[in-house]
Amino acid sequence: MSFPVLPPVAAADDAAAATALALLDRLTKPPGSLGRLEDLAVRLAAMAGCCPPDVPEPAAVAVFAGDHGVHAEGVTPWPQEVTAQMVANFCAGGAAINVLARQTGARVVVVDIGVATPLPEGLDDPSPAGAGGAAAGQRPRLIRARVADGTANLATGPAMTAGQAGRAVTVGLEVAAELIGAGARLLVTGDMGIANTTPSAALIAAFTGRPAADVTGRGTGIDDASLTRKVAVIRQALERVGPTVAAPSAGPAGPERAWSLLAELGGLEIAGLAGFIIGGAAAGVPVVIDGVIAAAALLVADGLTGGAVRPFAIAGHRSVEPGASAALAHLDLEPLLDLGLRLGEGTGACLAVPVVQAAARLLGEMATFDSAGVTEK
Amino acid sequence: MSFPVLPPVAAADDAAAATALALLDRLTKPPGSLGRLEDLAVRLAAMAGCCPPDVPEPAAVAVFAGDHGVHAEGVTPWPQEVTAQMVANFCAGGAAINVLARQTGARVVVVDIGVATPLPEGLDDPSPAGAGGAAAGQRPRLIRARVADGTANLATGPAMTAGQAGRAVTVGLEVAAELIGAGARLLVTGDMGIANTTPSAALIAAFTGRPAADVTGRGTGIDDASLTRKVAVIRQALERVGPTVAAPSAGPAGPERAWSLLAELGGLEIAGLAGFIIGGAAAGVPVVIDGVIAAAALLVADGLTGGAVRPFAIAGHRSVEPGASAALAHLDLEPLLDLGLRLGEGTGACLAVPVVQAAARLLGEMATFDSAGVTEK
Repeated sequence: MSFPVLPPVAAADDAAAATALALLDRLTKPPGSLGRLEDLAVRLAAMAGCCPPDVPEPAAVAVFAGDHGVHAEGVTPWPQEVTAQMVANFCAGGAAINVLARQTGARVVVVDIGVATPLPEGLDDPSPAGAGGAAAGQRPRLIRARVADGTANLATGPAMTAGQAGRAVTVGLEVAAELIGAGARLLVTGDMGIANTTPSAALIAAFTGRPAADVTGRGTGIDDASLTRKVAVIRQALERVGPTVAAPSAGPAGPERAWSLLAELGGLEIAGLAGFIIGGAAAGVPVVIDGVIAAAALLVADGLTGGAVRPFAIAGHRSVEPGASAALAHLDLEPLLDLGLRLGEGTGACLAVPVVQAAARLLGEMATFDSAGVTEK
Repeated sequence: MSFPVLPPVAAADDAAAATALALLDRLTKPPGSLGRLEDLAVRLAAMAGCCPPDVPEPAAVAVFAGDHGVHAEGVTPWPQEVTAQMVANFCAGGAAINVLARQTGARVVVVDIGVATPLPEGLDDPSPAGAGGAAAGQRPRLIRARVADGTANLATGPAMTAGQAGRAVTVGLEVAAELIGAGARLLVTGDMGIANTTPSAALIAAFTGRPAADVTGRGTGIDDASLTRKVAVIRQALERVGPTVAAPSAGPAGPERAWSLLAELGGLEIAGLAGFIIGGAAAGVPVVIDGVIAAAALLVADGLTGGAVRPFAIAGHRSVEPGASAALAHLDLEPLLDLGLRLGEGTGACLAVPVVQAAARLLGEMATFDSAGVTEK
């Protein structure tokens, strides 16, 4: 089995970052007073390779939907068919991510990369949606790219074959390329998949070397008994793939190990998101990372590219899920927002989009002390 | 001396809040998974008196500019004329608040309520600004409403007369009414005034009963010696007004005490902001609070209205200034963003505007489990 060839990711531009840093101290404000927006502005200049960078707009959200064989272990009270039902809800414009994307002017595409059950009829209909408050013309497009009808049960065997993992990453690369080709200049990770916090926590434990109990949360809100079961399932999976997991290095995981962990523990939507992140970074387009599922995908993408995607990833928010914080800390990323969200779909990342755009806009549009005739201290 | 009659502020609508709370659990998401957006949505319904509330847009930012006699005490390295220069920068569209307001689609007005020095020529010119990247038609309007050429030195005597404090509050009420009359449905507090973190910290110490050293910060970034001097100046002022400050109650300060503290320790822009907040609340319009200056003004408004404005105040962000956090904690308000900002002008509040609008939009536009045909757990 040969894995797909990944596009090269260029290094971020240190010279552009240095120019941005110097410019920030000439803008009409006390030095450093824009706090983390200043750090973000410097990073955006480095990603764009110029200063000031263009405002990264429009944004586009890709919601990758997949199901999980581990659902059979009772890790969630939600029935599996909800994944397909929510795909229909996304297509009708009635889910939270649709509302937040409309708020921020972002396009939404929905990708069936591995839903287990048939999708409802009529989702490819291009007519404007009536339900859910979606206005005409805003109906998200459904991309049918199902690699498999859900994954296998990661507790008892590999979640995916190597071929499936490779194909799902390729789908993500293609979705990123398509959105960027259509004009998107900021990508937002979205996900849907009943039970998908379980593979995410398993991947995060494997990549960070932290114990399962430390990185496993309540997902949609499970009770104590379910949480205990969920941790046990993840521990079982980690023991199963033990030889692969052993001795994670402190730096980015090597590509071979990352491919292996992805297939063993991952989900099809997580693989798709990993490809999506790599696709954005390869095009020099910033990718806003949502919650724990996206954070797991970022660890995979980081491993697959030897750390090359990291400069292009922006952590949108701090999910309630402990695994998200563990993954971001491992990657040395500090999230922009902290609003207690644990919904997924890309909601937290979408809320961060205006902050990201604001950081670039400040660099490009603020007057300097000289141009505005303002006296310095 | 008689103070201006303040408009009545109606109570928030508990029935609308209860309806919103019930609706949130019918929307297609796990209960509680939208975190603090859910609390905010409930509050917005209560403010609007209906559920779902309209999305509070457009937003309008009012930047109140004033100078401070306490500048003579050496509490800041910035010369006083920077206040007037920054008013010109706001009018030209080149300041950070202009950029962030453009990002979020908010209008900006600039209010000279007490600048000490003459404003540059030509600021009333309605032609589009060329400098600072402002696009045609986006030039902020300057409202000339100067109550005095700055305040007196609060370290040695009252900062304002009672008449000045009353007139400045009236200006703020009028600005709020004008913006709401012109269509604004979300108000954003903005401020400019070299040295204005000093009166703000003094007011916060007085209203919260906390020691000066606990609520005094570095403002634009002063050194240790300046900080020591600043704390000493504030302590001196608090001792001077001792009999008024003594024994602050745990609840909102009474109107008489609030008027007295405002005149003794406040600034003209702080008084204007207090009126602006009351004007928004009286019209049932949410007011997004920026940093430490706005937080001080909110304490004043809270005191002037016997706590009535509090339900209509949304803390936009957590400023680096310790006084801001002290004031918000005293008012039991949790800020939405925490990005390390310490610029003022309304920048942190303006960044929070899309989050506020998103919370209302979710309530109004998300599908329910029933309408979307999604199975519940």
